[in-house]
Amino acid sequence: MTSTAPTREQTTDRQLLEHYIATCSNWGRWGDDDEIGTLNLVGAEQITRAAALVTQGKSFSLSLPYDQTGPQPGGFRSNPQLLVTASGSDHVSGAQDPLPGGFGPAQGFGFSDDVLVMPTQCGTQWDSLSHIFWEGRMYNGRSAGDVTSRGAAHNGIEHWTGRMVMPAVLIDIARHRGVVSLAPGEAIGPDEIDDYLQAHDVDLQPGSAILIRTGFMNERRGRWGDYAGGDAPGLSLHMAPWLHDREVAAIATDTWGVEVRPNEIGYFQPLHIVALVHGGLAFGEMFDLDALADDCADDGIVEVMLVASPLPLTGASGAPVSALALK
Amino acid sequence: MTSTAPTREQTTDRQLLEHYIATCSNWGRWGDDDEIGTLNLVGAEQITRAAALVTQGKSFSLSLPYDQTGPQPGGFRSNPQLLVTASGSDHVSGAQDPLPGGFGPAQGFGFSDDVLVMPTQCGTQWDSLSHIFWEGRMYNGRSAGDVTSRGAAHNGIEHWTGRMVMPAVLIDIARHRGVVSLAPGEAIGPDEIDDYLQAHDVDLQPGSAILIRTGFMNERRGRWGDYAGGDAPGLSLHMAPWLHDREVAAIATDTWGVEVRPNEIGYFQPLHIVALVHGGLAFGEMFDLDALADDCADDGIVEVMLVASPLPLTGASGAPVSALALK
Amino acid sequence: MTSTAPTREQTTDRQLLEHYIATCSNWGRWGDDDEIGTLNLVGAEQITRAAALVTQGKSFSLSLPYDQTGPQPGGFRSNPQLLVTASGSDHVSGAQDPLPGGFGPAQGFGFSDDVLVMPTQCGTQWDSLSHIFWEGRMYNGRSAGDVTSRGAAHNGIEHWTGRMVMPAVLIDIARHRGVVSLAPGEAIGPDEIDDYLQAHDVDLQPGSAILIRTGFMNERRGRWGDYAGGDAPGLSLHMAPWLHDREVAAIATDTWGVEVRPNEIGYFQPLHIVALVHGGLAFGEMFDLDALADDCADDGIVEVMLVASPLPLTGASGAPVSALALK
Amino acid sequence: MTSTAPTREQTTDRQLLEHYIATCSNWGRWGDDDEIGTLNLVGAEQITRAAALVTQGKSFSLSLPYDQTGPQPGGFRSNPQLLVTASGSDHVSGAQDPLPGGFGPAQGFGFSDDVLVMPTQCGTQWDSLSHIFWEGRMYNGRSAGDVTSRGAAHNGIEHWTGRMVMPAVLIDIARHRGVVSLAPGEAIGPDEIDDYLQAHDVDLQPGSAILIRTGFMNERRGRWGDYAGGDAPGLSLHMAPWLHDREVAAIATDTWGVEVRPNEIGYFQPLHIVALVHGGLAFGEMFDLDALADDCADDGIVEVMLVASPLPLTGASGAPVSALALK
Repeated sequence: MTSTAPTREQTTDRQLLEHYIATCSNWGRWGDDDEIGTLNLVGAEQITRAAALVTQGKSFSLSLPYDQTGPQPGGFRSNPQLLVTASGSDHVSGAQDPLPGGFGPAQGFGFSDDVLVMPTQCGTQWDSLSHIFWEGRMYNGRSAGDVTSRGAAHNGIEHWTGRMVMPAVLIDIARHRGVVSLAPGEAIGPDEIDDYLQAHDVDLQPGSAILIRTGFMNERRGRWGDYAGGDAPGLSLHMAPWLHDREVAAIATDTWGVEVRPNEIGYFQPLHIVALVHGGLAFGEMFDLDALADDCADDGIVEVMLVASPLPLTGASGAPVSALALK
Repeated sequence: MTSTAPTREQTTDRQLLEHYIATCSNWGRWGDDDEIGTLNLVGAEQITRAAALVTQGKSFSLSLPYDQTGPQPGGFRSNPQLLVTASGSDHVSGAQDPLPGGFGPAQGFGFSDDVLVMPTQCGTQWDSLSHIFWEGRMYNGRSAGDVTSRGAAHNGIEHWTGRMVMPAVLIDIARHRGVVSLAPGEAIGPDEIDDYLQAHDVDLQPGSAILIRTGFMNERRGRWGDYAGGDAPGLSLHMAPWLHDREVAAIATDTWGVEVRPNEIGYFQPLHIVALVHGGLAFGEMFDLDALADDCADDGIVEVMLVASPLPLTGASGAPVSALALK
Repeated sequence: MTSTAPTREQTTDRQLLEHYIATCSNWGRWGDDDEIGTLNLVGAEQITRAAALVTQGKSFSLSLPYDQTGPQPGGFRSNPQLLVTASGSDHVSGAQDPLPGGFGPAQGFGFSDDVLVMPTQCGTQWDSLSHIFWEGRMYNGRSAGDVTSRGAAHNGIEHWTGRMVMPAVLIDIARHRGVVSLAPGEAIGPDEIDDYLQAHDVDLQPGSAILIRTGFMNERRGRWGDYAGGDAPGLSLHMAPWLHDREVAAIATDTWGVEVRPNEIGYFQPLHIVALVHGGLAFGEMFDLDALADDCADDGIVEVMLVASPLPLTGASGAPVSALALK
Repeated sequence: MTSTAPTREQTTDRQLLEHYIATCSNWGRWGDDDEIGTLNLVGAEQITRAAALVTQGKSFSLSLPYDQTGPQPGGFRSNPQLLVTASGSDHVSGAQDPLPGGFGPAQGFGFSDDVLVMPTQCGTQWDSLSHIFWEGRMYNGRSAGDVTSRGAAHNGIEHWTGRMVMPAVLIDIARHRGVVSLAPGEAIGPDEIDDYLQAHDVDLQPGSAILIRTGFMNERRGRWGDYAGGDAPGLSLHMAPWLHDREVAAIATDTWGVEVRPNEIGYFQPLHIVALVHGGLAFGEMFDLDALADDCADDGIVEVMLVASPLPLTGASGAPVSALALK
């Protein structure tokens, strides 16, 4: 889409991107009709292995509150809004007598009700495999044109509902480096991940999730600024082969977009292009890993059962999730 | 609120309701500040016991799709609506170049985005302890006036996020009776539940959930009619002491309101008044238990790990949930 | 888009459609940048002429209430929903003390507030010139691709805001025929309009609006059924040349889609294709003409000042309007 | 609501407020059932007098665009959002074939559609007589409790639809003072208005509207900051008797709340309390008077026909409006 001849550097970037695409693609690997990508790596064995990690009876929520305190700065994506359609104030002021819906006199009964309005990508969420396109295609080679104003006819988030149960490893890079938070622009590469896993004596099995904590949510919590959409620490593009080779089923971070921003090459969100569009990898964003990380630092146990099934929003680009880590 | 003298039957209904309230109340049991009710019954022991039930690596989603095919007939509560704010059509037609948000030329990158609009009570959901009032009060004696147009200052659904992990028993009354579905108005009482548990050799422990299948969702699926809001099979009011004595932590059914409709006494949703408002019991509604029930009929195992943490919607009357049963 | 050879009748339909398009098009007539179509026909002269029609000081609202009693059956378009974000119940129950927004103690002050959610096409509204496409193009030859998930970059309804002031004639076909309502499928052609104008001694001037009453809203009011989207009486496709030659600036009817349904030829809404897409004519739909019509029957005066400026919804496919007829 | 004894100044403020309430109230003036307040002052005479002001055929829109560029800073009230449900991108990419709704093959036809989400008070709007309460009451003595989560059972904005047609005077205080804009906190009192009217040779008749331009919208346009909700120039509380005596039917300003902020006495929005709650006066807010003001400065004619009927949003606290000034 650029009319000028590519410079030497752009040529290199493009070649690099295409190399990663070629070597990390899972298109066709699980059949031409596949719509779940790396969740194919999670089966009965992974689920039972995950459950076996629950030995202490601890549960950690990994989801930010969905409300007006959320991280969005406004504009394209707003924070969740709860609109109350029946209130306790109505009840105590007598306005719910009779009850609506033909239910008759209230006789002491009252109720509240509300409507949720939220962008699916505004807080803690999984990207669906219909969220990102590359040159007119999404995961498994389907046309981006399958995602219209009516939603995604294929690769929608609903295909992952019921499936997000697997062993996961908390990879606390911030603590590993001894910092409160990595800085925007700081990338995390495969060597550092390997080093962390070795230090924590973790043998990462295929079909696992990795939960990568940069500390950036901790630093920005409540003073979000450009947290959601701005520069951020995150995964290097060069993680792509590692994620593919290790058969990672899902990745989640405490940042808005998983990968480091600004991007390392002259393409927007290249790790999404390689690992999500071509690899079919589940990307989880704005996961709140702080409470879990504190506990892992305390007991030294970084392997957990992740249960993080997205809401079955038919045809959606992503979905909010009440994600749990169980130990 | 009725100006005529109560009839003999009304007097009896009122006395019965007050008797159940008096004997089944948990107000103050877990402190005056408590906002989680029977979820206090679920601790580390229940979580590890639940995880130990996962031996086969099976996962069942108990949530209906959140979309326009949902059970609502329109009116007060609509079905979930997904509004697309960026589409693959835009991408393929070149309308996403440059990218919004100052992200520059698309160079092959594209994305979809969407906004969810849904009543929190329109599909599979947990009622919060701020959803129902009785004579100006909600669970633990708090004023209904705490629930305003800004949401619930207390007892909102967010207090249950991270906590809905426990052992659960699938109680398939429809199969137990040998019918496709119980009929509207048919009540389920404690003797039948006991009989079922005995037949399936289940020793129900405190802090467990029970998932009661009437078959009514199965019968109405896709031809909903008045499924959501009309007459329905369900729990008898007389389940209240049993639920209290057995220390049930949560109950979910495949109907819109857990309890039988029409109600058995002259008060609206009396089991909600007794068990939810006074008992602080978690009510799950419109849970899709059919696939799980088929599997339980196959392998004879009705005890599962329930993981059903509601979305953390601050101050909400309830929340959608991606509920899972793991075996 | 059909792969079979066209039948004789289809060929004729297509030829007819193309003939009307060729002879009734205003593309380029007011410059290549024009985005207002036939509103170019309304200038200072038309506005003053319209105002001169106001001799009795009567005002008639032509807009249906925007609320849940509206004509939509649900599905793709819902009826308007008002979501209350601050209520008098809150005020009387003391929940508005202190005031939000840092405004301090209420000291007796209270307020209500609300949010409107409505499809722009769900009730009384003007279609914009970006609402309908023909073979990839909209009015004045612009690409339909200019209308993306972000709205219409061109031809949006906002271009008509401030301009919908002109003389208008109430053409009450139902009364003219002596029926309560024309039946679905009954078409109104140019001869009948001419006959009506002659009978009422109206000399229709260029730059006027015509308000055509079929009686169908009257018949269906409150028992809408398929009123919005189903079969309906309306204008014949063969009105196209008449509308063009008479230089009509705007047309509005008491039906959902102006033109007769089922359509007279094998193309969907062919009058929209000819008169809106190619003619740039303003189409007003679901205008409530009943009260005005009663008055016109009483005093015999059918010429009015129309003031019906649409809400300036940037980039919208249409807009609700509080339309007035003044006499 | 304050438990301490009032200070001398507070006593004075309260006494002043009560004095104005007592002398400026219209409760009961037009009957106990009245829901339209000062719009009772507008009848056939005012409408014809207004129309007679249209001599040049000019039309000025007084409404801000309803879109994301609006004046709201986010939070309690957001800016209008247009959510596209069918796009030209869909059409050109072939995704609208067949048409939805059972309308069959597209055969070249295409369409766009969208949904509007907006707080009724977020932009140019009329406050309804159910928008503001004083000590549990709204206009004409009705209980604030009539405004529940379901909307206003009385005094909703729909009662003004069809009625906002009257003579109006543009009172350009900014130009009168020779400043770009009055500063926040600067009040406009009756003497200045009288001086302006005399200078422009205007004999203000009962049942007219006054359009007061402070210049503040002009100064803040596009760099809104705290324009909507913060300190602002505006009307003095001491305008209340003048507005009442002159029988003003409606007032609109280019600020968010008509009256000066910070308020002149220790009560929040006291002019609303006196003139809107007790006087039943129509308050129009965030009216864009700049283009009209330029024209009035050019031709010296400040009397116009105002046509500004609010959308008939049943039970709403206010409504957006496409307001026109015609000359």
